[in-house]
Amino acid sequence: MQCDRIWRGARLATLADSVPGLGVVEDGIVACLDGRIVYAGPAAGAPSLDAPEIVACDGRWITPGLIDCHTHLIHGGDRAEEFERRLAGATYEEIARAGGGIVSTVRATRAASEADLVASGLRRLDALIAEGVTTIEVKSGYGLSREAELASLRAARALGRHRAVSVVTTFLGAHALPPDETDRDRYVASVCDDMLPAVAAEGLADAVDAFSEGIAFSPAQTARVFEAAHQLGLPVKLHADQLSNLGGAALAARYGALSADHLEHTDEDGAAAMARAGTVAVLLPGAYYFIRETKVPPVAAFRRHGTRMALATDCNPGTSPLTSLLLTLNMGATLFRMTVEECLAGVTREAARALGLLPQTGTLEPGKWCDLAIWDVERPAELVYRIGFNPLHARIRRGQ
Amino acid sequence: MQCDRIWRGARLATLADSVPGLGVVEDGIVACLDGRIVYAGPAAGAPSLDAPEIVACDGRWITPGLIDCHTHLIHGGDRAEEFERRLAGATYEEIARAGGGIVSTVRATRAASEADLVASGLRRLDALIAEGVTTIEVKSGYGLSREAELASLRAARALGRHRAVSVVTTFLGAHALPPDETDRDRYVASVCDDMLPAVAAEGLADAVDAFSEGIAFSPAQTARVFEAAHQLGLPVKLHADQLSNLGGAALAARYGALSADHLEHTDEDGAAAMARAGTVAVLLPGAYYFIRETKVPPVAAFRRHGTRMALATDCNPGTSPLTSLLLTLNMGATLFRMTVEECLAGVTREAARALGLLPQTGTLEPGKWCDLAIWDVERPAELVYRIGFNPLHARIRRGQ
Ligand SMILES: [Zn+2]
Ligand SMILES: [Zn+2]
Repeated sequence: MQCDRIWRGARLATLADSVPGLGVVEDGIVACLDGRIVYAGPAAGAPSLDAPEIVACDGRWITPGLIDCHTHLIHGGDRAEEFERRLAGATYEEIARAGGGIVSTVRATRAASEADLVASGLRRLDALIAEGVTTIEVKSGYGLSREAELASLRAARALGRHRAVSVVTTFLGAHALPPDETDRDRYVASVCDDMLPAVAAEGLADAVDAFSEGIAFSPAQTARVFEAAHQLGLPVKLHADQLSNLGGAALAARYGALSADHLEHTDEDGAAAMARAGTVAVLLPGAYYFIRETKVPPVAAFRRHGTRMALATDCNPGTSPLTSLLLTLNMGATLFRMTVEECLAGVTREAARALGLLPQTGTLEPGKWCDLAIWDVERPAELVYRIGFNPLHARIRRGQ
Repeated sequence: MQCDRIWRGARLATLADSVPGLGVVEDGIVACLDGRIVYAGPAAGAPSLDAPEIVACDGRWITPGLIDCHTHLIHGGDRAEEFERRLAGATYEEIARAGGGIVSTVRATRAASEADLVASGLRRLDALIAEGVTTIEVKSGYGLSREAELASLRAARALGRHRAVSVVTTFLGAHALPPDETDRDRYVASVCDDMLPAVAAEGLADAVDAFSEGIAFSPAQTARVFEAAHQLGLPVKLHADQLSNLGGAALAARYGALSADHLEHTDEDGAAAMARAGTVAVLLPGAYYFIRETKVPPVAAFRRHGTRMALATDCNPGTSPLTSLLLTLNMGATLFRMTVEECLAGVTREAARALGLLPQTGTLEPGKWCDLAIWDVERPAELVYRIGFNPLHARIRRGQ
């Protein structure tokens, strides 16, 4: 078969769902045609393949390109000063009175031009790309007005034009109450009746998210957002059970959500409901670490019920200023006791599933995008074990 | 004054001990002659300076080059497989029976040639250098025989010939009981009477370290190592009070140690003794994080007594496979609640002090090496706040 490019002499971790473990192939080949994988498997027994470019991998490991399936990459400003003040002893109240907290990010996001939002987002994106990320999800949620939410989503889409990365966008109007609003129901109505139709009309969102929490929106308000999304044909996902158990996991499952995210306080029933609905558990150890949470998500319950687990950075200025998916792997293992296999599946196959992109990416299988990460490691476990070390040798997105 | 190179239009964090806080200079200049700083301060009031090369810094921040004052960078192999097995449920006993633990690193280090040790060390060193590190301490301690300890120290010295970095070496023969030895006193005797004189004869160590712990060496055995070091005119330091309080901090202070390191279990008296002796507390949050320790070092006691605090990676394969000093800053703040100022001083001025190098480096002051890190940040707090992000713009070592 004539291909565009062939990688040979590689060790593969295909992450294919049909085989156990990482889907290891010791002497492997990946062949690409028109940006898609046409073969990924052992050299022995491969079809006859030829290509103008044949890359010798010298025994390096190839995994699927990494996927960061939960980020707030687009936002104005940062919260370094607030971080500094808190360490110096300032209370949350003092910081809020000084204009800190999420309100400061909303203010900075609204003040930023779309070009500003793209420029600051690209710096963070470049850090992820340098570690082999080929697909990224980006949420709005710091604009909290129609115009500012639209601008954030346009900026998110623009990231994919500036870099060779697949960008999936999520509308998160129901992230927080904006500073100029006092009535949560009224704000949710504007999210559903005003913002969301405008977002959908421009085709700016691939999914709709909400933050269900005592400090954010109630289950009933969340359900209202989900109904509005479904009427527009958009899939949903949820920031659920991070700080308390409001039944967010079960609510997400009831709406067939792609994922429920955070889940520190999810109970056994929530885990079971997610498994039945095929809703992926997206775990975010960066936020757990940064806010010094002590309750870990119910990983054992997810295993018992077969709930799929993904890992993501949650990159955001307030609770997870984290731009390393490799470090997220280590945190998943160290803080949540996920296995190496669970961690690596969590940033490839399961992250793709959480974005509804499993048919396109997340494993090394024929027909999928040829998104690869090629690593200078002796074994895949090194990607999880090391802290603050990047052994990426090359990153390939859609065959390039 | 004629200089070699001038950086202007910079914001400086000089970290000078004589001024409060970070020693911020808003419109600053650094001037270099023969690899040393001749001026670092405000543009207004600077002497008349000229140089063939004038670098415009466009408002970027300059800090002293970073210093990692506690690493085990030189070792053979890694422990990724052991890490993977432990996550999959293997007990410490099962791993030890399978040849894991420190014994596996000793075996790999002894099997490695000096060139192998240098090559694997350089990969880790390059990760540190990419974040602005200009000085690094490297310990032996995985050879545990005369020849293997000498080879490790020679490899450590070689790092400084392969890269533009200042390397300080430490002999840590008293790290663990070697696998071929059963008698701790007999081994300590060989450390003191055989290994240490050989190390000193070749000029391979700048200091001598030991691991004082129930699982390692007793206070009496540690004191014996310190006596031997002092007889050869070498300063000492100590892995102290990491897993239990054996009075390591006070013991280190009694011998005028440059530093005592770890210190999770140090008590008020230990903190006070260190302050009186000028012994720096080197805190290692990477190991705290990786082994999921819950007891934090007594930061408040160190503040009360004026004990100086440094931060380091403790880069080692068993308990801190960490090669990011920027991440260490964030861990110092997030896990140990150190302030931004304490964290930044901890990888510059106090790290230099912990190595006995404060006259040469660690602050931006005339007469010191012109070791600089130039950062694309709006404020120094960003260096501590961000996780897995490297905003280094340029790194200068001895003016180059
Ligand atoms: Zn989030
Ligand atoms: Zn150590």
